[in-house]
Amino acid sequence: MGDVAIIGAAMSEFGEREEWLRALLNEAGEDCLDDAGVAPDDVEHLYVSNMSSGEFEGQTGIMNAVAHDLGVLPAYAERVDQTSASGAAGVYEAWQSVASGASDMTLLVGGEKMTHTTTERSTDIIASITHPVEYKHGITLPSFAGLTARLYLDEYDAPRESLAKVAVKNHANGVNNPHAQFQKEIDVETAMESPIIADPLRLYDFCPVTDGSAALMFCPEEVARQYTDDYVLVSGIGGATDTHVVHEREDPTHMAGAAISGQEAYEMAGVGPDDIDVAELHDMFTILEFLQSEALGFFDQGEGWHAIEDGVTTMDGDLPVNPSGGLKSKGHPLGASGVAQVYEIYKQLLGEAGKRQVDSEVGLTCNVGGFGNCVITSVLEVGR
Amino acid sequence: MGDVAIIGAAMSEFGEREEWLRALLNEAGEDCLDDAGVAPDDVEHLYVSNMSSGEFEGQTGIMNAVAHDLGVLPAYAERVDQTSASGAAGVYEAWQSVASGASDMTLLVGGEKMTHTTTERSTDIIASITHPVEYKHGITLPSFAGLTARLYLDEYDAPRESLAKVAVKNHANGVNNPHAQFQKEIDVETAMESPIIADPLRLYDFCPVTDGSAALMFCPEEVARQYTDDYVLVSGIGGATDTHVVHEREDPTHMAGAAISGQEAYEMAGVGPDDIDVAELHDMFTILEFLQSEALGFFDQGEGWHAIEDGVTTMDGDLPVNPSGGLKSKGHPLGASGVAQVYEIYKQLLGEAGKRQVDSEVGLTCNVGGFGNCVITSVLEVGR
Repeated sequence: MGDVAIIGAAMSEFGEREEWLRALLNEAGEDCLDDAGVAPDDVEHLYVSNMSSGEFEGQTGIMNAVAHDLGVLPAYAERVDQTSASGAAGVYEAWQSVASGASDMTLLVGGEKMTHTTTERSTDIIASITHPVEYKHGITLPSFAGLTARLYLDEYDAPRESLAKVAVKNHANGVNNPHAQFQKEIDVETAMESPIIADPLRLYDFCPVTDGSAALMFCPEEVARQYTDDYVLVSGIGGATDTHVVHEREDPTHMAGAAISGQEAYEMAGVGPDDIDVAELHDMFTILEFLQSEALGFFDQGEGWHAIEDGVTTMDGDLPVNPSGGLKSKGHPLGASGVAQVYEIYKQLLGEAGKRQVDSEVGLTCNVGGFGNCVITSVLEVGR
Repeated sequence: MGDVAIIGAAMSEFGEREEWLRALLNEAGEDCLDDAGVAPDDVEHLYVSNMSSGEFEGQTGIMNAVAHDLGVLPAYAERVDQTSASGAAGVYEAWQSVASGASDMTLLVGGEKMTHTTTERSTDIIASITHPVEYKHGITLPSFAGLTARLYLDEYDAPRESLAKVAVKNHANGVNNPHAQFQKEIDVETAMESPIIADPLRLYDFCPVTDGSAALMFCPEEVARQYTDDYVLVSGIGGATDTHVVHEREDPTHMAGAAISGQEAYEMAGVGPDDIDVAELHDMFTILEFLQSEALGFFDQGEGWHAIEDGVTTMDGDLPVNPSGGLKSKGHPLGASGVAQVYEIYKQLLGEAGKRQVDSEVGLTCNVGGFGNCVITSVLEVGR
């Protein structure tokens, strides 16, 4: 099979949006059709990444509605769910649809509408992904994050401030992203003094609850050349699942799903961690940025925190991480996030990232479902 | 790419089950691993077809749980939703995962747990797939079926009894299916005198509310030969979406999604409707068996009802339709149904269908999402 290219990308403003999911998905979908210069009639497959429109809105079958609204009928339409990694699962399906020959033009739209619920209700909907035994004992994803952060700080003698510095970095990056939910800088003191949510983690260690959408257009490389000279290739992609019961993991500070999916993506792309110029990692909680950067081989285990202290992952460092602002500052509309990660790398590789542009030829995205229950990693390169 | 083979299949008993979805999925998944003779470690991708575990059970992330329980970690896991065609959407994804080279061994498990809710509640969950405007006016899938049946009977001078005869045929077939929810014959009189649900349709024109699961194992044909001499090839597959607003369809008695997806599947397989020896169609409502058999080219439009009158689609007819008993008698656990359709054709083609065996070398399945909003058609052939 030939390589799979991305020839268009779009994302909505992330934040508190008045529109319902369907309108948000349509917004990114229409913008992506425009950006790619693809006529709706030419779309053969449509994937919609979304975790829980049924639970959040009482609306299901959203992929059929979006196919109708965007005018891509009779394109095959499907919803893809991998909890908070639904976006990257959609990227994986879109890639497969093209690589298998099933579709020569695939539109992926990811989104979630969440802010109309209370934080308690949306936390509970998300917690319904956990093992029933853990759920019954009151476990939520933030509490997993707190427990893991405590373990990490103790195990590797990391200062608490290093976590705060992840938030500070990603907020600083988000200032330059017009789509980000929070476009304001914070300082370490603010982060360290914010209310405790799940000890030792505080408010600024967590991504917000967000509405938003993002979209990408995939096709075979030979088709891409008919549309544009500026495209990006999905040169590697892989996905892996870890134990559903988090406490059964041998070492909760090692994200096996990220390590295995990363290895798959590297092998397929024929690159290694040293070849990555820019990365979008799943910083739903600050601690996760360390864990992924280690599991993906950017740093040795337990040494990810040095990177933030040494400025390696800032915009002018050797490996900028989350130039978009990450989930922390850009926001985390579940089904959109993995799509928006690829949107960011697409823009970076094509030199269209504006004030947040970094010098890059090879980029990586890592999208996490649950608390590392499933992880999908992609390697992206400029088309040649 | 080479052909994609199915080397194992399993299904649970359909009906009112005490187990929750997770246990049902595990049951079919384990039986399928056994049937295929594949070690859990060798599974690379796991797809779970399920429409609404969040709405029915308050449990999400079910694919991660099943990956854990079946011991297939670190296989990539994902949930696939195409409403009541979720099962076939999973077949399509499993096919793509193998055809694209992403996976050399893909397990698909589909299921739904529904009977613990009231019929009203489950009808409402399913109705949440409809357009909000239609939903607000009280439209449900049964009411669409009633309206369309009235139109069909009027338009094509079909006798009301012809619909009843579909139910009678599929109940007769279900008697020979040990997995079917209803294993009892009915007569035309019983069907014609049963309570009206959505005029002119009566109780026996509708499939029941059902719990159950089914599973299939996919791999490249060259891998299949290492496991068995008895396998089935997915020689054609296609999917197509129709308008989300049902009343916008030019002719509601023509299922465009079935026609287009069928054409795609035929072309890919290099066959036509005349080559099909046996078919499993989506008889969620009796009227749908006529509409699909016409859209798929078995009969001219408006003439599908003659087939049941002339005995063409019975077990000893030229084209047996729904030898499994169909959704009508076997039951319709949403995410399982499309998988169970392929299970039936797999068993038929390999000569393992017991008392319901028909002579066949090429089979077809047609799984319908919504009221024809999305349709997926597959052509299956014995491996050579």
